[in-house]
Amino acid sequence: MTPELIAQALKSLRQQKPLVVNITNYVVMNNTANALLAVGASPIMAHSREEMADMMSFAGALVINIGTLDKVWVERMAFAIEQANANQTPIVLDPVGCGATTFRTETSRRFAALAKRLIIRGNASEIIALAGEKSQGKGVDAQDSSQAALSAAKALVDEYQANVVVSGEVDYIVTKDSVFSLSNGHSMMPQVTGTGCSLSALTGAFAAIGETTGLVAAAVMGVAGEIAGQEAKGPGSLQTALLDALFALDDDTLLARLKLAQL
Amino acid sequence: MTPELIAQALKSLRQQKPLVVNITNYVVMNNTANALLAVGASPIMAHSREEMADMMSFAGALVINIGTLDKVWVERMAFAIEQANANQTPIVLDPVGCGATTFRTETSRRFAALAKRLIIRGNASEIIALAGEKSQGKGVDAQDSSQAALSAAKALVDEYQANVVVSGEVDYIVTKDSVFSLSNGHSMMPQVTGTGCSLSALTGAFAAIGETTGLVAAAVMGVAGEIAGQEAKGPGSLQTALLDALFALDDDTLLARLKLAQL
Amino acid sequence: MTPELIAQALKSLRQQKPLVVNITNYVVMNNTANALLAVGASPIMAHSREEMADMMSFAGALVINIGTLDKVWVERMAFAIEQANANQTPIVLDPVGCGATTFRTETSRRFAALAKRLIIRGNASEIIALAGEKSQGKGVDAQDSSQAALSAAKALVDEYQANVVVSGEVDYIVTKDSVFSLSNGHSMMPQVTGTGCSLSALTGAFAAIGETTGLVAAAVMGVAGEIAGQEAKGPGSLQTALLDALFALDDDTLLARLKLAQL
Repeated sequence: MTPELIAQALKSLRQQKPLVVNITNYVVMNNTANALLAVGASPIMAHSREEMADMMSFAGALVINIGTLDKVWVERMAFAIEQANANQTPIVLDPVGCGATTFRTETSRRFAALAKRLIIRGNASEIIALAGEKSQGKGVDAQDSSQAALSAAKALVDEYQANVVVSGEVDYIVTKDSVFSLSNGHSMMPQVTGTGCSLSALTGAFAAIGETTGLVAAAVMGVAGEIAGQEAKGPGSLQTALLDALFALDDDTLLARLKLAQL
Repeated sequence: MTPELIAQALKSLRQQKPLVVNITNYVVMNNTANALLAVGASPIMAHSREEMADMMSFAGALVINIGTLDKVWVERMAFAIEQANANQTPIVLDPVGCGATTFRTETSRRFAALAKRLIIRGNASEIIALAGEKSQGKGVDAQDSSQAALSAAKALVDEYQANVVVSGEVDYIVTKDSVFSLSNGHSMMPQVTGTGCSLSALTGAFAAIGETTGLVAAAVMGVAGEIAGQEAKGPGSLQTALLDALFALDDDTLLARLKLAQL
Repeated sequence: MTPELIAQALKSLRQQKPLVVNITNYVVMNNTANALLAVGASPIMAHSREEMADMMSFAGALVINIGTLDKVWVERMAFAIEQANANQTPIVLDPVGCGATTFRTETSRRFAALAKRLIIRGNASEIIALAGEKSQGKGVDAQDSSQAALSAAKALVDEYQANVVVSGEVDYIVTKDSVFSLSNGHSMMPQVTGTGCSLSALTGAFAAIGETTGLVAAAVMGVAGEIAGQEAKGPGSLQTALLDALFALDDDTLLARLKLAQL
């Protein structure tokens, strides 16, 4: 994918304003909804079984994030994935904390196996753990470099017929046919909760308009995060500046800052 | 209602610091609580059946927002409405996403029928759907102009003996006896999740001190949002500036900016 | 404890990045996680029984906050406390709204009795109510001065073999052997929801590295809040500035601003 196609996808998203249904964790629901609004998409946060068939009949994408999972929500998420499958709707899985507990690892694998049109977006430790390799992760924060997760990402592409985004200091976007790296972003982003979760949501927004590799979302978030990090005095103002930057991002800025390479 | 009475109501609210109990959605709980604190009210976010009779014995108002409803929370909300009725406590209903799914539409109508001292606050698409007319809504974002919802709002006033606030580019405040319009606010407000939900919460705060039309809350939120929008660089900083503006709003500013008309 | 030891503890926390598991309320999950990240700790927000034994096997501390309790979450919290006890993990209890409803008061007392290595952090009205004295509290906001809660705090120290932090205009840190007062902070902090909850979370972070009195967390939050309050234009920008100040806080600033006294 070329930089020009990335800029074109952002323009298309703002014209089409796709509906993205999110079953995500309590911590980041607000940020995630705001990130989707700022970039130009239309977020819905919903989890009830009673309305999920309705939701999936018109949603452009489904984003599943297990950050604050419990057994009730796990079944709701599974049901939503089935409904998305029935509508050929793309699904983004964010396996938050995969590897930290058996419950998270097993739930992540169950969902990855269940989802048909799947994009996985995680940090290095989560991707490594999901692939069954040995990670250095503790809790929900990554302890491995994203490069160390590259073979795990490739294994997941094969195992689940999925596209995989490993985010970190360098992001890797791995599909069956290609590996891209993105070197945007800012060192302070991991000090703000939910930046990865917001990336997963944006991944859903772009999937809803047909960009299912995850590359455009990673580019948009990386460049916006970089701008926000340079303006911010700390993680509090970074969070605010990130939404402003997503909202204001234009083609020229995106193309001028993009650090994209094909491996 | 005159501008002077609106300014007087804001002063009264800050003196009385009414307790407002909110059963609201996960996405906006933080913003909503902060909006209530910033304007001078005392928020409680609670949902447990075990304490709702206690809560309603001292609450000044109950705010019900169905943004992330499920069947468990729906029954808790119904119970809270019954307890509010038993105490003659005013109830604000925010029918988030009414019309988007059958579950949301039916739940909204059930609550509207159950609540005795009712104020409904929604966007145009929600008000139109609640009244059984055909809306252009998709998801939870309004697709209809607020003017297009005026007849629906009047129908709801009659059907539920409620006061109705339709918020949008122009807000309409509809009661049995009058229709007011407010033209404050800012075009960037729909890019921030939960500004409508915060308005519903403020509507509860003013209802708790006897202003049950919804007009004062809409005026305060409209003027504060207008100030915030003019200061903000994007939706991230708007959210921050909105709380600052609610906190700082004084009589002179409110009266100077108010764009109020009676229809 | 001396100011130099307080500065040393902050340095140690940033080196050790302790894992803090939080079962907290929906309103403040985002702020709380961000406050922990900003100060240098590693937050996990989790509540599922299925993974709590795993979580407690590696967590440095458990923070229990009952702000949006219901009977399902109460049992999850009780189970987590038992798991923490089994691992000798320190537990922070934030009895939000204790005294406002019978459900909150009884749940707070049950947890205080159950937890072995306990630190209680509450506002004056909550501490007074937890000790069975008569508070002026309404809802979840304090109506009593923190000094008025001093005898209640001492009673809780004895009853539960706990350390107790009463936060307010002056904070009191009460242990079996000593009472310290802290006079930092800012008058606008009570206008932001969750500043007390964030203090409870930081109390957990310092407990995880062996500082179980609660004093260091109160000092760090008090000084950071003071800086943020002086920079902020209102409660919206205070929330942002608080995270920036926690992130940037250095030894010299901490020592220069600290208003600590032993009673």
